Amino acid sequence: MKQLETYLSFIETELNQLDLPSSPKNLYDPIHYFMKIGGKRIRPILTLLAAEYFGETKENALPAAIAVELFHNFSLMHDDIMDVAPIRRGKATIHEKWNTNIAILSGDVLFVKAYQQLAKQSQEQLYDLINLFNKTAIEVCEGQQMDMDFEQQAAVSTEEYIEMIRLKTSVLLGCALQFGAIIAGASKHNQALIYQYGINLGIAFQIQDDLLDLYGEQEQVGKQIGGDIIANKKTLLCILADELADEPNKHRLTEMYAEKDHSTKILLARHIFENLGVYEHCHKQKEIYYLKAMEALETIDYSQNKSLLVSLSDYLFNREY
Amino acid sequence: MKQLETYLSFIETELNQLDLPSSPKNLYDPIHYFMKIGGKRIRPILTLLAAEYFGETKENALPAAIAVELFHNFSLMHDDIMDVAPIRRGKATIHEKWNTNIAILSGDVLFVKAYQQLAKQSQEQLYDLINLFNKTAIEVCEGQQMDMDFEQQAAVSTEEYIEMIRLKTSVLLGCALQFGAIIAGASKHNQALIYQYGINLGIAFQIQDDLLDLYGEQEQVGKQIGGDIIANKKTLLCILADELADEPNKHRLTEMYAEKDHSTKILLARHIFENLGVYEHCHKQKEIYYLKAMEALETIDYSQNKSLLVSLSDYLFNREY
Repeated sequence: MKQLETYLSFIETELNQLDLPSSPKNLYDPIHYFMKIGGKRIRPILTLLAAEYFGETKENALPAAIAVELFHNFSLMHDDIMDVAPIRRGKATIHEKWNTNIAILSGDVLFVKAYQQLAKQSQEQLYDLINLFNKTAIEVCEGQQMDMDFEQQAAVSTEEYIEMIRLKTSVLLGCALQFGAIIAGASKHNQALIYQYGINLGIAFQIQDDLLDLYGEQEQVGKQIGGDIIANKKTLLCILADELADEPNKHRLTEMYAEKDHSTKILLARHIFENLGVYEHCHKQKEIYYLKAMEALETIDYSQNKSLLVSLSDYLFNREY
Repeated sequence: MKQLETYLSFIETELNQLDLPSSPKNLYDPIHYFMKIGGKRIRPILTLLAAEYFGETKENALPAAIAVELFHNFSLMHDDIMDVAPIRRGKATIHEKWNTNIAILSGDVLFVKAYQQLAKQSQEQLYDLINLFNKTAIEVCEGQQMDMDFEQQAAVSTEEYIEMIRLKTSVLLGCALQFGAIIAGASKHNQALIYQYGINLGIAFQIQDDLLDLYGEQEQVGKQIGGDIIANKKTLLCILADELADEPNKHRLTEMYAEKDHSTKILLARHIFENLGVYEHCHKQKEIYYLKAMEALETIDYSQNKSLLVSLSDYLFNREY
């Protein structure tokens, strides 16, 4: 999306100029490395867009935007350890390239660096920013814990799953947007609405991610089709299948989960899901949250042109299927 | 020390009333458990004493004091993972009792809880408190990284070692004291002096800890005599021995480090250290920093009675040898 490129390069320039020392090398090299791996920088862009939308310059919201991106990367560093993930965005993860201790500690430092960025915003806003940031950070950790707990849990309900992705993914989008609103001096009412926009957009986006695992095109998705199915990951597709299945289909699902051959497993999953209408149910859930997001955006009591925020929503969902 | 008991029970009462949710259980149970293991609560007491010293009530400094203690416990949680420590204060560490992932994540949450406590202080002080806290947190991580790096490093100089313990241990004592001074509205000059008192007290205290490993009485120290020697830990004793040794003693030190029998190893260490005057050199270093601490305290340009802070210094060094 052409319009967003200005924002992206604005963020990248700032990230490249981050004031990070070089020593101790084993603490700061991993941070430099991880921040250079890239990413879509959606979250800091949200902060800039929200600030501009409510009448502030993007320059004045830059530290808070960077804080959000640093926090996001901190949480990825620690999540990668917990998920024993060898690869992140095509590169070796920190615990793989260095070791787990270094991944823990450089993650911790990056977390503090996020607070340092936030503390660059004006003193009058700091109280609101810090309180929202603290609340969000705790919720993200709670979401990650729920996600880990689900692996050991026999049945996960749709409600539990949505709550998990709300915490693990969406609250940070809401926080990023509300940061912009706070910095621009938006009313509490409008702050709450833009936060709700972020929450619902995040949930819709995560559901779309689950859908794309099985129903996306490989080149669009950028990862192996059916990867979640192969790994028996409890995505919304499987959770809905479990909820919708009658006894014969429950039996088929159990067989599918136990299947060792990857291609057979994916074929079985597609077949059972089609019988149960899993795609349609999942797609409907996505639409519900997408519409909630748009509704929150439209309700905002502010006369500015919302086209850029709407474009962003479109951009996030341009991976059509 | 009788006078400090009031402060300790004030802290314990507040820690017992911490507003922690119960779910997700795997996230919050470890925090409840770890905070109940206890500890001397020296750091939060420092905040209260400094606040009172500069004319503020201890009640008004309580959130910042709790923040320091929560941060300290967060750093212990993550350090225990890195040090593969099975026991902390006589109890199983979190990664032992639960697992590493849970120890990482509940540590992260505890870190945010520290920021939440700090944000309870008045908005006017928040900017100074957060900036000092951020700087301190990063330094503590840098100290931990240096400590880990030392394990792989052939030679460590006294200067490097002192810098490591300054970062890993002392800056948090300085921060705890300066928090009290900030909250009481002390001048920048006096804030810097009480910070210096904390820094130097912390270094002296850590050197004493190194000394006690070999020259303390078991019941005073509460842990196995010579534990650091057995583990080949690079404490100031060994660093000074390496620096002071001539060729024959360097050879003896190499033999001592390689010795497998614990009693023989400790005997060898005592013998070599006595030849080199290691005890005296180490004790002298401790005295230098202790006197620097006292000098900073005396230079403070404030008329209040300093007896309680002096008593605290005495208390910290009452493990005479």
